[in-house]
Amino acid sequence: GDGRMGMIYDGNDVQFSSRARVKFTMTGESDAGLSFGGSFRVDQENYSANEYRSAARGTAGQVWISGTYGKLSMGDVVSASEAAIGDLYEIGYTEGAFAGDIEEISYLTGDGENLDQGANILYEYGIEGFTFFASATDGSDTNLGSISPGANVDDELNASSDDVAYSLAAKYEAGNYNVGLGYGKHGDADEIVLGGEVTYDQFSVKGIYAKYSDRFTGELDAEEFDSTIGLAAAYQADALLVKGFWRQDKFKYDVAGDEKFDSFGIGADYDLGGGATLAGGIIDSDYLDDTVADLGVKFKF
Amino acid sequence: GDGRMGMIYDGNDVQFSSRARVKFTMTGESDAGLSFGGSFRVDQENYSANEYRSAARGTAGQVWISGTYGKLSMGDVVSASEAAIGDLYEIGYTEGAFAGDIEEISYLTGDGENLDQGANILYEYGIEGFTFFASATDGSDTNLGSISPGANVDDELNASSDDVAYSLAAKYEAGNYNVGLGYGKHGDADEIVLGGEVTYDQFSVKGIYAKYSDRFTGELDAEEFDSTIGLAAAYQADALLVKGFWRQDKFKYDVAGDEKFDSFGIGADYDLGGGATLAGGIIDSDYLDDTVADLGVKFKF
Amino acid sequence: GDGRMGMIYDGNDVQFSSRARVKFTMTGESDAGLSFGGSFRVDQENYSANEYRSAARGTAGQVWISGTYGKLSMGDVVSASEAAIGDLYEIGYTEGAFAGDIEEISYLTGDGENLDQGANILYEYGIEGFTFFASATDGSDTNLGSISPGANVDDELNASSDDVAYSLAAKYEAGNYNVGLGYGKHGDADEIVLGGEVTYDQFSVKGIYAKYSDRFTGELDAEEFDSTIGLAAAYQADALLVKGFWRQDKFKYDVAGDEKFDSFGIGADYDLGGGATLAGGIIDSDYLDDTVADLGVKFKF
Repeated sequence: GDGRMGMIYDGNDVQFSSRARVKFTMTGESDAGLSFGGSFRVDQENYSANEYRSAARGTAGQVWISGTYGKLSMGDVVSASEAAIGDLYEIGYTEGAFAGDIEEISYLTGDGENLDQGANILYEYGIEGFTFFASATDGSDTNLGSISPGANVDDELNASSDDVAYSLAAKYEAGNYNVGLGYGKHGDADEIVLGGEVTYDQFSVKGIYAKYSDRFTGELDAEEFDSTIGLAAAYQADALLVKGFWRQDKFKYDVAGDEKFDSFGIGADYDLGGGATLAGGIIDSDYLDDTVADLGVKFKF
Repeated sequence: GDGRMGMIYDGNDVQFSSRARVKFTMTGESDAGLSFGGSFRVDQENYSANEYRSAARGTAGQVWISGTYGKLSMGDVVSASEAAIGDLYEIGYTEGAFAGDIEEISYLTGDGENLDQGANILYEYGIEGFTFFASATDGSDTNLGSISPGANVDDELNASSDDVAYSLAAKYEAGNYNVGLGYGKHGDADEIVLGGEVTYDQFSVKGIYAKYSDRFTGELDAEEFDSTIGLAAAYQADALLVKGFWRQDKFKYDVAGDEKFDSFGIGADYDLGGGATLAGGIIDSDYLDDTVADLGVKFKF
Repeated sequence: GDGRMGMIYDGNDVQFSSRARVKFTMTGESDAGLSFGGSFRVDQENYSANEYRSAARGTAGQVWISGTYGKLSMGDVVSASEAAIGDLYEIGYTEGAFAGDIEEISYLTGDGENLDQGANILYEYGIEGFTFFASATDGSDTNLGSISPGANVDDELNASSDDVAYSLAAKYEAGNYNVGLGYGKHGDADEIVLGGEVTYDQFSVKGIYAKYSDRFTGELDAEEFDSTIGLAAAYQADALLVKGFWRQDKFKYDVAGDEKFDSFGIGADYDLGGGATLAGGIIDSDYLDDTVADLGVKFKF
């Protein structure tokens, strides 16, 4: 499990914020040596309250089977692109949540995006430094109750919840660096994401570029999410870890032209040992009216 | 805990379906040797979301106390009839859920049917091959919040949620066969259920006949659930288990006369060892527009 | 975990009532010797259903950090007053729930009262028989989603959910007695609570007096909760524990003058060993139309 306690400055007030969570991880092995398992947190089981956040309905947590031919996961899995590239560095004791998790790259598919089709799948296969990823939905939003939740939109409406969402990606890892390339598609929209990370002595740097096509947000003036460029850096000195990131998101409009949103963050973690970490962060984002900050302790049990 | 992952053919589309669940089982023993316990799954606790599926409210999971005088259980227990006779064989990796659990006999009381009166009770006592069962509700739908949820229907409406629902049953088990007889009553409606199962070498056969009286479904034309006859068979060959069932439900109407609904299912389980089973099934039912099927892996942890 | 099963007489009907619960307690220790932890029950995690009863949102359960300078807890903590003084003795197998937990003193702040501001804090420090307590909310009801739930009432309405609620208290414990004094304030309302408990041989007696000012209930005729006086006594004889309490609550009105509500309760616990206790109680309260009772078994696992 994990926990945290501390304070958040929301731009106007300082607020207390805490949480306690428990995660279950179950594993087994077949006679032929296939390993399998399942995992979810207590807060990911909302059987009666939310069919899209329920491990027993396949829309939260995940199950997997793994062998020499790779690993197949099903449930609320990340997309291939996200599995290969990931997000920018999390800062603060709430791990970015105090600023709406702005360090997270907005992947087109998976990771909670396509659960209106029920469980998603992710396949991973690694060979000689390369890892290949493929993820997909089933392309059907027909609701089958507890076994396949779904948006159940009338077929004549051509809902995107009836389009297969998929993603393909590859990652190459060498001694002190890795690079990843991902492609995702859902309906008319697609994404190409490129990422890389280098570690040198106590420094780490990570860069991500994501380019979207026909990714309309549904907002006025035909708002279209065009691209994101992000950079994160970290410096480790004994128990102290200083981290920062910058990202810029570009939106296009029919009439108003382009608009860019910048976000900056800087933070530090101090490892208290035994699973406790003192952490704080400051984030300034064009998405937010105010600069926000957090400071507190986070626990791993 | 348990988990599963695989695909379901819903008659039109193939859909991914997975789940992960955790079950808690707690036990103890008093100084005088009474054993007691409680059990529920995480998805059976929906405290704020659903008062009829909450272990902390007594409407999911169960608690029990057991000694030389038998076992008394309270909560979301099965009825006496169901405890004695049970259901037809489950097929597929979703254990029948891909066809709406049509292998389950529709018992009049208990097993989720009478939770609008709060917790149900079940008493079991075994002696020399015989087991006797009695189950009941308390006959009151008055809602007492967390300690006794209830439908709280106005007494003047004579709601069935204010009628005691009860069931009595007996089962006899010998070396390779067992037979059971159950009676259930709720308001004007009653049931008589007869079941038996024989195991011979690698073969098992189970038959169930349930006859209902005055069991109106609330549908048009005074629809009345009249009876169910069901038959299930299984054949075990090493790791392979082949199973099938047939059932026929009869409904009566005021104007339209009678109608019968047939359902067939066949499936196979292949034990992979270590708690993993590869399983698939096909079910064709008059209740469903299409023949449906599933194929996947199920896990026990 | 814990469980219970038995019967409640609600004044008109006898009802079955049972429950099963599981509690998680996680602990750790930092390199410098600070101990920390978190705890919550499964039923206290209602992530999607209820933002005010969710351990992952800080509104149920709690996390804490503890060292030589005291213990700081955050989440759904009790107020300083309640931590120092507590409630009257619980009776019955449902521990007072069969009568709406009338043995509980109505503290002005904390213990579920102020979660419309998100997580609450409680600080405790003990020295030479004295324990000092301080608790508070953050004075902001701004909703920050999962990290700080809140009522989000328009600031111009001067909602009490934007007033800091706090409490200060002290307790002194000697060999066989303890006394506590607490003060609480939220907006215009405040409380002063005085309590004491003496244990002599097999007898225990506890008294509590709470005086409120400007504590309007929102009911008609400017109903104001004025004060509570309560007395509880217990007698232990081997496995048998007999308990009783009386409390009187006084309300003031603009037009109608004063009104007093008396409540009496008596009950007995019989320890069966191994965590099982047979218990029953009877409560007569002016708040209830009828005398109510319960009888059953409760379990600790």
